[in-house]
Order: sequence, then structure tokens, then C-alpha cells
Amino acid sequence: MEPFTDVSRLSLNQATTQRWSLREAVEGCARAGIPAISVWRDKLAETGLTQAVRLVRDAGLRVSSVCRGGMFPAATAAERQARIEENQRAVDEAAALAAEVLVLVCGPAPNRDIVAARAMVRAGIAALLPYAQERGVRLGIEPLHPMFAGDRSVIVTLAEANALVEAFASPWLGVVADVYHIWWDPDLYAQIARAKGHILGFHVNDWLVPLPDPLLGRGMMGDGVIELRRIRTAVDAAGYTGPIEVEIFNQALWNMPYDEVLALMRERYLAYV
Amino acid sequence: MEPFTDVSRLSLNQATTQRWSLREAVEGCARAGIPAISVWRDKLAETGLTQAVRLVRDAGLRVSSVCRGGMFPAATAAERQARIEENQRAVDEAAALAAEVLVLVCGPAPNRDIVAARAMVRAGIAALLPYAQERGVRLGIEPLHPMFAGDRSVIVTLAEANALVEAFASPWLGVVADVYHIWWDPDLYAQIARAKGHILGFHVNDWLVPLPDPLLGRGMMGDGVIELRRIRTAVDAAGYTGPIEVEIFNQALWNMPYDEVLALMRERYLAYV
Repeated sequence: MEPFTDVSRLSLNQATTQRWSLREAVEGCARAGIPAISVWRDKLAETGLTQAVRLVRDAGLRVSSVCRGGMFPAATAAERQARIEENQRAVDEAAALAAEVLVLVCGPAPNRDIVAARAMVRAGIAALLPYAQERGVRLGIEPLHPMFAGDRSVIVTLAEANALVEAFASPWLGVVADVYHIWWDPDLYAQIARAKGHILGFHVNDWLVPLPDPLLGRGMMGDGVIELRRIRTAVDAAGYTGPIEVEIFNQALWNMPYDEVLALMRERYLAYV
Repeated sequence: MEPFTDVSRLSLNQATTQRWSLREAVEGCARAGIPAISVWRDKLAETGLTQAVRLVRDAGLRVSSVCRGGMFPAATAAERQARIEENQRAVDEAAALAAEVLVLVCGPAPNRDIVAARAMVRAGIAALLPYAQERGVRLGIEPLHPMFAGDRSVIVTLAEANALVEAFASPWLGVVADVYHIWWDPDLYAQIARAKGHILGFHVNDWLVPLPDPLLGRGMMGDGVIELRRIRTAVDAAGYTGPIEVEIFNQALWNMPYDEVLALMRERYLAYV
């Protein structure tokens, strides 16, 4: 479990610097020496795709991911089809940005039937995958924490995400592991090992005790209880060598000056990840 | 999936009527025709054990459980031993009340090592189990929702609880299933089936969307997204015929008149469970 000695794998997920535009985030990364960025689609829409592509290219930034596609389950076939079309636009954006992965947050059930909703996720991925493959975009299923099962994702364990990936057996489909969502899992290390060869992204942050807020209470690395280096070492051992995104939804952090946030995340990344 | 036609299995968990003393809760159950109650240890301490035993006996109430034992992991051996002794007092109270089970909320890790904390839970149960057996008290491991992994319980899935029960293979150890904690689990129905023969308690309530608060945001049955009857039917199919507790930590409900809460929970139990 060796600490990192440089930030060559560090990436800023735009969720961490919520008030910054894409231009500001790109310039912030340049100032802080952070070599990669994860781009959110709402920020992309503000900036425009052509301009966004130019910004990241001119800055020499790697795009570790686009956030996010998914949200497959819906009450009607027409609405499910509309979601697929929205996902296709997300794939096009990821392709234009040469992003390493399009992150899929799979969506909640439209009613009480979570089992049926999980089947809709599988059908949605089946519908989207050929489109992604044609455009050279990899799709990464991100299991969310089970506390989001009611409103954000019926896929809540790495085991489920792994099973989906294995069912499709496509090099264009993998998983994205975020420590906040998976740290609690008694099967964590076995599932990371099982994901060998199809980990497409890795996100770090921390779990604060007590939890300030389910959505906006994530912590900076080192401020919580997650065994970050142990998990990172396991992810490394599963063959993942790509970018490591810092993704922190936290109101207190959002209120800070962002150059300070980037300096802090760099320092904590070296100390704890 | 037949609905219930009577409330013969319904039990009031005292957490649902937070402001009521044990005497008030016992009298409330009598007025509402609810045949069982789950007693909390803080309420028991207020009333005194002798008086509590007399109250429930005179009212003819079944004691579905005592809440709660557990909290095994601690930083030092001395502190872990103190926790065992506290658990022994809880066993004594459950024995005096002829409670069907002592619920174990297993506790958080004293540091970042959740794997080590899980081993402390196993050691704690091993230390407590002979004492419980001698006094005729069954211990029920209640897995909590993973969002409580940092501050309340490192045991967060029915799979873990089942594995612990299987490891000890004692008729005095089983699981307590609470829908709030387990409804999200992709492995839910398989794990309920696996628990056949060792389910010692079943708790109902609901998961509201959006979640008002992790601790105090549970919903009344029917107000949320949990497939209550489907889960209850699975628990029945696993051979559980005991009391079904309504356990709802909810500030809005705590502010209501409690005879209304009992009438509502009775109505919703018949309609949704």
C-alpha cells in the first residue's frame, strides 16, 4: 500500500467545484497542475460542446469521464425510449470530448417494483451499448449507495454492476467505483477483484460521521472513515491504472474559494489515497 | 399474497411513540386492540423492570422484543468487556419480560477498520450467546441500512447476519429483518429464504422519497416505495409466524396524538402489510 508521489492520475470531477463554469474549472486545473477533469453535462450545455472540446484540448487536459447517462427505468415504453435518445446525446458528447468513460447512474424505479426496474436498466443498457460501441465510447455503470435506491439508482452494489457487465461481456461496458457508494459493503474486496479488467473509473472522497446530509454531505479525503488507501490498492490490484476523480458534493466545500479546494484535494490525495 | 384480516400479529415498537412512557404505550395498545409491544431499554429504565413486567403482564401483552443490545466493537479490550456486561443486563431484562428476542444493533467501528470491527461483532456475540442461552433469551442480529455503517452498525446486509447465524448454528441466535434496512438489497429474496428457520423478528415501516432524514425520516406503511406485502409474504414463506413490529422513527409522527398514530398504523398494516 504505497502512497502516490505525484498527481499524474488525479482528476477533478466538476461536481466538486459546483459554481465554476467549465472554462473556470479547466483554468483551475491548469493552475493547480491537475492533469484531468470529469465534465458534467449541465456545465457542457452552458459552454457549448465545440467550445468545451477546444478548452480541454488547448489546456492539454485528459477527460476522465462525462457525467452522466443512465436513468433508464420509466413508466412507459415511450418514456424509456426518450431516455435512450438522451443517452445517445450523452454518448455523442463523450465521443467529442474523447472521454474515457460515460458514467451511468441507472435511475430509480417508476413505482414500487424495484425488481422490474432493474430489468429496465438491463434493457436500457442493451439498447444503448451498440450506439456507444460504434462511437468508441465506453459505458461505466456506477452503483450508488443503497440510500439512493428510492430516488437515483436501483443499482446499488458493485456485485449487481459486475453481474450486468458479465452478462453483456462487451469491452465497451464496465463499472465505475466510487468509495462513497461502496465502502460499507461486506463483499467489497471480493467484488473489486471480480471487476478485474472492467473497472473504467474510480472516484474518491470520504464518508463523514455523523453524515451531514445524504446528498451534500460527502467529505474531503481524510475527514471521514473510509479506508481510502486500502480500497485504492485493491482497485490497483484489479488492474485499474486510469484517472482517479475527486468527486465531492458538499455545500461547505462549494462555499470555499475553489483554488483552495483544489490545493486541499491535491494534498489529501497524496496523503490518503 | 393475501392481506391480513386481523391484527393478531401486530406489535407496537416503542420507537414509534417516542413521547409515551411504557405505561402509556401499554395502555395505548390496550385501547387500540394491539396485542404486542416492543420495549426499549431507556423506557424500561424510566419505569423500572419490576413495574414494567407487571404492566405488560396485567395488560396481557406479548413482548415481541427488547431494543436493544449490541454495540460490540470498541477500541480497547476493557471497553469491549464493558459492552458485554451491558449486553448481559439487556439479556436479563429480556428474560424478565419474557421477550421473544433481544434485538442486536451491532455497533460501528472504533476507527477506519470496518473489517476488524466485524470480527469484534463476531467475538462479542460469541461472548454473549452462552449467557443468553442460559436465561432462555434469543438474540436477533438486525442488519442496519448501509447508511448507518459509519455510526451504528457494521452489519449492514441480511447476508452478513445470515452468515453469522450459520457460523454459530445456535437456536438462540437469529436475524431480525426490518424492511427499512433491507428493502434495497438486490439479493433480498434469496437472503430471506436463506434465513428460513432463524428469523426472530420482522419490522415494518416505509421508505419515503425523497428521504426527509436518514434517522428520523422513516415513513408510515403505504407512504413510501417499499413492496411491503411482497416482502412480508417472503418472510412468511421462510416460516416466520411471529409478531410484526411497526417501528417508525419520524419527527412528524412523534408530534401527532399517539392514539391517532396507533389507529393509522393498524389501518395501514391491514392495507399494506
